[in-house]
Amino acid sequence: MTLREEYAELQAKGLKLDLTRGKPSPEQLDLSAGLLELPGAADFRAADGTDTRNYGGLTGLPELIEIFSPLLGIPQGQLLALGNASLQIMHDVIANALLSAVPGAPRRWVDEGEVVFLCPTPGYDRHFGVCERFGIRMVPVALTGHGPDMDEVERLVAADPRIKGMWCVPAYSNPTGEVYSAETVRRLAAMPTAAPDFRIFWDNAYALHDLTDRRAGLASILDACAEAGNPDRAFVFASTSKVTLAGSGVAFFGSSPANVEWLKKLMAKQTIGPDKVNQLRHVRFFGDADGVLAHMAKHRALLAPRFAAVEHVLERELGGRGIARWTRPEGGYFVSLEVPDGCAAEVVRLAKEAGVALTPAGAAFPYGHDPRDHQIRLAPSYPTLTELTEAMEAVALCVRLAAEEHKVVTEGGVQS
Amino acid sequence: MTLREEYAELQAKGLKLDLTRGKPSPEQLDLSAGLLELPGAADFRAADGTDTRNYGGLTGLPELIEIFSPLLGIPQGQLLALGNASLQIMHDVIANALLSAVPGAPRRWVDEGEVVFLCPTPGYDRHFGVCERFGIRMVPVALTGHGPDMDEVERLVAADPRIKGMWCVPAYSNPTGEVYSAETVRRLAAMPTAAPDFRIFWDNAYALHDLTDRRAGLASILDACAEAGNPDRAFVFASTSKVTLAGSGVAFFGSSPANVEWLKKLMAKQTIGPDKVNQLRHVRFFGDADGVLAHMAKHRALLAPRFAAVEHVLERELGGRGIARWTRPEGGYFVSLEVPDGCAAEVVRLAKEAGVALTPAGAAFPYGHDPRDHQIRLAPSYPTLTELTEAMEAVALCVRLAAEEHKVVTEGGVQS
Repeated sequence: MTLREEYAELQAKGLKLDLTRGKPSPEQLDLSAGLLELPGAADFRAADGTDTRNYGGLTGLPELIEIFSPLLGIPQGQLLALGNASLQIMHDVIANALLSAVPGAPRRWVDEGEVVFLCPTPGYDRHFGVCERFGIRMVPVALTGHGPDMDEVERLVAADPRIKGMWCVPAYSNPTGEVYSAETVRRLAAMPTAAPDFRIFWDNAYALHDLTDRRAGLASILDACAEAGNPDRAFVFASTSKVTLAGSGVAFFGSSPANVEWLKKLMAKQTIGPDKVNQLRHVRFFGDADGVLAHMAKHRALLAPRFAAVEHVLERELGGRGIARWTRPEGGYFVSLEVPDGCAAEVVRLAKEAGVALTPAGAAFPYGHDPRDHQIRLAPSYPTLTELTEAMEAVALCVRLAAEEHKVVTEGGVQS
Repeated sequence: MTLREEYAELQAKGLKLDLTRGKPSPEQLDLSAGLLELPGAADFRAADGTDTRNYGGLTGLPELIEIFSPLLGIPQGQLLALGNASLQIMHDVIANALLSAVPGAPRRWVDEGEVVFLCPTPGYDRHFGVCERFGIRMVPVALTGHGPDMDEVERLVAADPRIKGMWCVPAYSNPTGEVYSAETVRRLAAMPTAAPDFRIFWDNAYALHDLTDRRAGLASILDACAEAGNPDRAFVFASTSKVTLAGSGVAFFGSSPANVEWLKKLMAKQTIGPDKVNQLRHVRFFGDADGVLAHMAKHRALLAPRFAAVEHVLERELGGRGIARWTRPEGGYFVSLEVPDGCAAEVVRLAKEAGVALTPAGAAFPYGHDPRDHQIRLAPSYPTLTELTEAMEAVALCVRLAAEEHKVVTEGGVQS
């Protein structure tokens, strides 16, 4: 049977599967069912007596900060517990930097001729979306397996004062799954930058999302920056979106004392405070930091078999063929699949026409453009194991078909 | 006994009372105790089957929008249910207008030489704080008892294209309690403006907060704008902060289809969605629009006696003396007290030194400056009736003392 015939059979199955987004599965959300009836009708007082139902408390509930401070490696006084979306905090921090000079900045970013961000790629499409929305020019930098190509990063930031920021997903990076090495963290913190107001946007979204029983062991960017004499260089973001409920978690911001003061002062004009009842709900649910880790172990028990299934099918169907490479992440939410140059969009199209939705090819690159058209992000968390195996078999077939037909076109000059 | 002697006795009581902010009382928050255990561990599906625990749903839960649409007089398709704070939406809409041209704007507001907002005064200090934070110049306009002085407003907006916005709290205005008349609403909607991108920020915070059994009867600004051929003129804001839980409610945005599209597109870059579980919680709690109105009747039962107590003490202590005027609001959260010119700060100081915290004099004016130093905002909602009566007696004494001593100074030339 030819690959085209196999593909016709696949299409005949009428699949309807979705690997597009890193969404927790219903089983994962069920782990937090307790939250849906917490804190309980008579429980609304914080440890200090605060009535969480009322206004106030701009910086978040101290006992929730106490739980997450050691988990995120950020001192309690430098950690804020805020709303339901860390993306919103990142967006708002950039809006704030555009409209109010960050500590050490000569002026507001909106008054700069041009603002440029470095974007390690492949990366998180929503980060790039925020830059596009604000007209911030994005410059891609390659990832190496232990963080961005630091020679390139150092060269760029030393030369160009327009480079004001850099996105990083330092633990189990989206989508490559790599963890930035201690040396990468040290160099990011210490490198000379032409811009005095250069900021690293350290999206530690997967800080707690190990797929093995080893923690990621990510070095503290805030410590590294302080030690290097650049204490205000990093903004750190995290959330419980993939810990508790994806739309109803708590997001965190951590940074140097000066940056935290800067943000607090601006936030005081933006809101009277975050949803403290939801923060109390999380305190009651977790109890303490160990409670969070125990909870993450339950996620791991659901996620690890899914990642194993992806690896199993990819290895069985594509291993040794020389047409694909993929990551074997030890944490996070994604597998990054590389196909022959010029084939990614075709694989996504073939998969779609066989009923398997994949993240659009190029989505993990600035402006949605993968110059080599070779990278595909796979998100195994949401489907059931059975669905996932079916979907991955379909994807593998699409990769083989696209690779074969691409080879005919590029090497044989024959239009298929 | 002289007023000074009475004041010394008052100070000796060692009161510790707070009339500063429009916070719901614990009894009011108790009315929403049910929310603290909703939706319940097994209840997380919206009417359309959406799992509210997961990501998505940028514009809010349709069934919550359905409940509030008739209450706010905004068509469902033009109403968004968002986060926990309408202040944040107002702030973010201005940040968005600064950084992305609003429909009909020739350019982003940040690219204008200067942006000016009209501020009906006395008004809400947090509105003015947002303007200050963004460097928007504020021009005060007098309130009349049925909305701003429209002759003045029309004259200003017709002449000056820098005037891009105007704050309005149209129902039970903070702090004067007035409701904008139908004629005011019509003129606001129809008036020619020099700026093609002029926007009314219609903070309908007290839409449901009647203190009598009559509804405020506010005319629809969106309808009036559409009828006048200025469909995109008004941004409408509301929230359940003073309906359910002050820090954990749901905020709403309503506007013309073009404005809603503009904001949705920008919000899509800022967040993956609001806390839908909290929205479902509110749906389960209220059931329908009548449930909201029944709930508001319970608030009224707690608030109306407090406002009556304020009126009673003020009338008894200050009535007929010719030294004070005050509002008798039929809704909202505040009483506005006017004392002789030059006395407000002194009253607040005297009250503070007698243990009664009042909103700082001038807070209800742009830049915190009341040019006549004559207005004080009283917030009766939070204290118990007993505390409130004590506090108001103290305030009344402070008014009498300040007025008497001021008269001696200004008429007699004698320093006290």
